[in-house]
Amino acid sequence: MSVNAADDRTMYAMIETFFRETFSTDNALITEAVKRMLAAGGKRLRPRMTLLAAEACGADPRRHLYLAAYMELIHVATLIHDDVVDRAETRRGVNATAIDYGNRVSVLAGDYLFAWIFKNVTASCPAPIPHILSATLATICDGEVLQMSATGNLSTTPEAYVEIARKKTASLFAASAECGAIAAGAKAAEVDALREFGDCYGIAFQMKDDVLDLVADERTLGKPVGNDLGERKVTIPLILALRNGDEPFAESVRGFYGATDDAAIPRLAAEIAAQGGLTATRRQIAEYSKKALAALAPLPPSHAKTELERLADALEHTEP
Amino acid sequence: MSVNAADDRTMYAMIETFFRETFSTDNALITEAVKRMLAAGGKRLRPRMTLLAAEACGADPRRHLYLAAYMELIHVATLIHDDVVDRAETRRGVNATAIDYGNRVSVLAGDYLFAWIFKNVTASCPAPIPHILSATLATICDGEVLQMSATGNLSTTPEAYVEIARKKTASLFAASAECGAIAAGAKAAEVDALREFGDCYGIAFQMKDDVLDLVADERTLGKPVGNDLGERKVTIPLILALRNGDEPFAESVRGFYGATDDAAIPRLAAEIAAQGGLTATRRQIAEYSKKALAALAPLPPSHAKTELERLADALEHTEP
Repeated sequence: MSVNAADDRTMYAMIETFFRETFSTDNALITEAVKRMLAAGGKRLRPRMTLLAAEACGADPRRHLYLAAYMELIHVATLIHDDVVDRAETRRGVNATAIDYGNRVSVLAGDYLFAWIFKNVTASCPAPIPHILSATLATICDGEVLQMSATGNLSTTPEAYVEIARKKTASLFAASAECGAIAAGAKAAEVDALREFGDCYGIAFQMKDDVLDLVADERTLGKPVGNDLGERKVTIPLILALRNGDEPFAESVRGFYGATDDAAIPRLAAEIAAQGGLTATRRQIAEYSKKALAALAPLPPSHAKTELERLADALEHTEP
Repeated sequence: MSVNAADDRTMYAMIETFFRETFSTDNALITEAVKRMLAAGGKRLRPRMTLLAAEACGADPRRHLYLAAYMELIHVATLIHDDVVDRAETRRGVNATAIDYGNRVSVLAGDYLFAWIFKNVTASCPAPIPHILSATLATICDGEVLQMSATGNLSTTPEAYVEIARKKTASLFAASAECGAIAAGAKAAEVDALREFGDCYGIAFQMKDDVLDLVADERTLGKPVGNDLGERKVTIPLILALRNGDEPFAESVRGFYGATDDAAIPRLAAEIAAQGGLTATRRQIAEYSKKALAALAPLPPSHAKTELERLADALEHTEP
């Protein structure tokens, strides 16, 4: 662990270099679709978590770049499959991979990527990492189906929301941190601590994502503000605003969710804020962020541990 | 291996009972979509091959039902993903899962199934079975992308066709037979023999599938006759008819592939036969079927070996 290997920017650079120089598959069209998705950016939070977890458990993170990359690639593969659209939904949203390559190639590229990852993981990672990764993918899909079923359901409870967020978003963060610790040969208590960190971080991350959808500007977000409302998703700011808000607000939400007209999105976003939905969500984010920090207690002090703490802090304290 | 465990009907019944009574996932919507696809029928050739391979190597096939089931489920998951359609293609073909559940659920159900299979395989099957299955899925996707790229390309060679058929179809038969042998604890020579058997069988199987698309009646086939022509696929009967046929035929094929009018399908199917495309393909099927039989040479005589030989024979000698 020479000079600042744990430094977060160094970590980020290591991951980018790996993707640029090392990643490739046997199929040119698939490689192109994946590289295009990787080049589109992203904060590489999942691989950073794997590398920081490994380092926090005493390993040299540079020995686990492949494992970290697989975490990002699972995320990328799910994004590629998210791009697949139903005909009925084509009036909404622009879906890069599906638009440029078609649904068929999107499905095949995602499938190939999943298969490629598992092929590599089963060849190079010790048990139980291959099992954790495949179980995580099953959990993500389960969460996405639950989310689909909850679409438009205004009586979704905060508990049901957390279950969906835990499955569809937090499970990959939890696996990223857990596998980093396992690869480092960490003790069970450290592995559990890092898994718990990833789980709490991931739930707070999804809540923050819901907030950003309402408050960020389109350029920062890379998609239109109120996109979740446009898709009639039931987000945590909306759930908490409905729980605490007045009846005229509930009426206005029911009207919007019962129709297909998107003109009211800016007004509805403002109402969610006015009814306390953002404030209540920020309180929840702070709570999960603190739980994430607390989970790190069993780990000895280290630069990597401090970086993980910073990641959790950032969810609570920064907003664009 | 009591009374006729190798009997092919018993084997089939064992697989059906397993699917009916044992298969389930954590997600109700996904379980329903998968069970619906399983109930729609199918000859269960891949799991039968796994069980026969295990038995031909001296194991009790009933101990490997799960492994056999995973082979069918990989096939089912790829079928569910095949159902995902591009908007531009919706005028063609009826796609059961995608029509009934939408593209989004089809993608998620297939992903979940792949993940569920790998989760189970990594928990219960010894190395290198998890690696073989994930590598096989990557190969299938690679083959499907190659086939997509070859769509409408009338200069596709027989060699290029065989490469695609080997990847997209034969690889799963090869893995089914190979993994059955590995699970049985077979010697390397037997494992290789069964993999080779599955590979040759699978190529002949795909060629036979191409023939059936041209000669079977719609009721037997479960899809319209000439469906491959409708999708502008380049099948082996067409490739061989073009290779041996006359110039007016080539002209007529180019006209059909350059346009979107499907009215000429019955005429074109008849021309492919008249130009020797079916006869030449049947010769190729016979060749691969004989190679499959020859591959079984290292195995000692057994009822299971005889059943495998019958499967290969059936490709050559039966047609509806």
